[in-house]
Amino acid sequence: MDFDLVLALPLLERTPATLRTLLAGLPPEWTDATEGPDTWSPFDVVGHLIHGERTDWIPRARIILAQGENRRFEPFDRFAQARDSEGKTLGQLLDEFERLRRESLRTLDGWKLSDAQLSLEGEHPQFGAVTLRQLLATWAAHDVSHLAQIARVMAKQYRDAVGPWRAYLPIMDR
Amino acid sequence: MDFDLVLALPLLERTPATLRTLLAGLPPEWTDATEGPDTWSPFDVVGHLIHGERTDWIPRARIILAQGENRRFEPFDRFAQARDSEGKTLGQLLDEFERLRRESLRTLDGWKLSDAQLSLEGEHPQFGAVTLRQLLATWAAHDVSHLAQIARVMAKQYRDAVGPWRAYLPIMDR
Repeated sequence: MDFDLVLALPLLERTPATLRTLLAGLPPEWTDATEGPDTWSPFDVVGHLIHGERTDWIPRARIILAQGENRRFEPFDRFAQARDSEGKTLGQLLDEFERLRRESLRTLDGWKLSDAQLSLEGEHPQFGAVTLRQLLATWAAHDVSHLAQIARVMAKQYRDAVGPWRAYLPIMDR
Repeated sequence: MDFDLVLALPLLERTPATLRTLLAGLPPEWTDATEGPDTWSPFDVVGHLIHGERTDWIPRARIILAQGENRRFEPFDRFAQARDSEGKTLGQLLDEFERLRRESLRTLDGWKLSDAQLSLEGEHPQFGAVTLRQLLATWAAHDVSHLAQIARVMAKQYRDAVGPWRAYLPIMDR
């Protein structure tokens, strides 16, 4: 499917509410669970999404749209959430993500992006030239990818509890 | 993590609302999308979850709790939803799933299951002896497994649109 802002927006808009519905008030046995050492819990993932709103999607889109001399993105810190989320509750993170996403989409909406603008390029520190269209598609795909991750982390907590049904649940061994 | 009804219930309770928040009103380009021939769309998955409420979880729990002569479960028809969902909208399926899940959990709650009851066994057509505890753990794990599937199906629609970022999104090739 080609990227189309009209289709990507409703997906980007609903991620905070989806995460809230799935996670708010859920016992910490689920929301703090991980897939093992050095893997993320649902709590960690929400922190990661917050960091993306602050430093990745809209800031990178700005770099592309400005078309200045230096169009190279700051490398994204995939571990910043450990620091930023410290001492916060999951409820606070869900509120923060909702607020930041709303701001991000307000900014995006205000740009009234044209097809020509969506084809503008920035420079990814690893990949080189990437278009604004690719960045925005990645933003939406990244949301649902992390939603899948959260659901997978939760499923795995019952890896043993499901007994022989594990054979029908490939997610347990992914 | 061991199965604990107190922890499983809040997960089972919120699945209909999570799916509604994620899917209701989303363009059909997302909700009817699949991972290729003979794979399921989010629409199909909701139909599958409905079929589970009708024929799998509570009906099988009843067979176990009755401890009659024949404790063998009916095989679950993993393709029934194509027939049952025909002509329905996604909104109708989300309503139906919510209603059926509410009824299922009311039934479950009414049983006030003891540890001894959770250890009772039924006979799975493929696996042989399984406990009620394993069945209920599978119910919860099955929910989040299918939530992960829905998110994955949606992510994959942007497999090409994300350009080089595909290298950072292993879900695209799962």
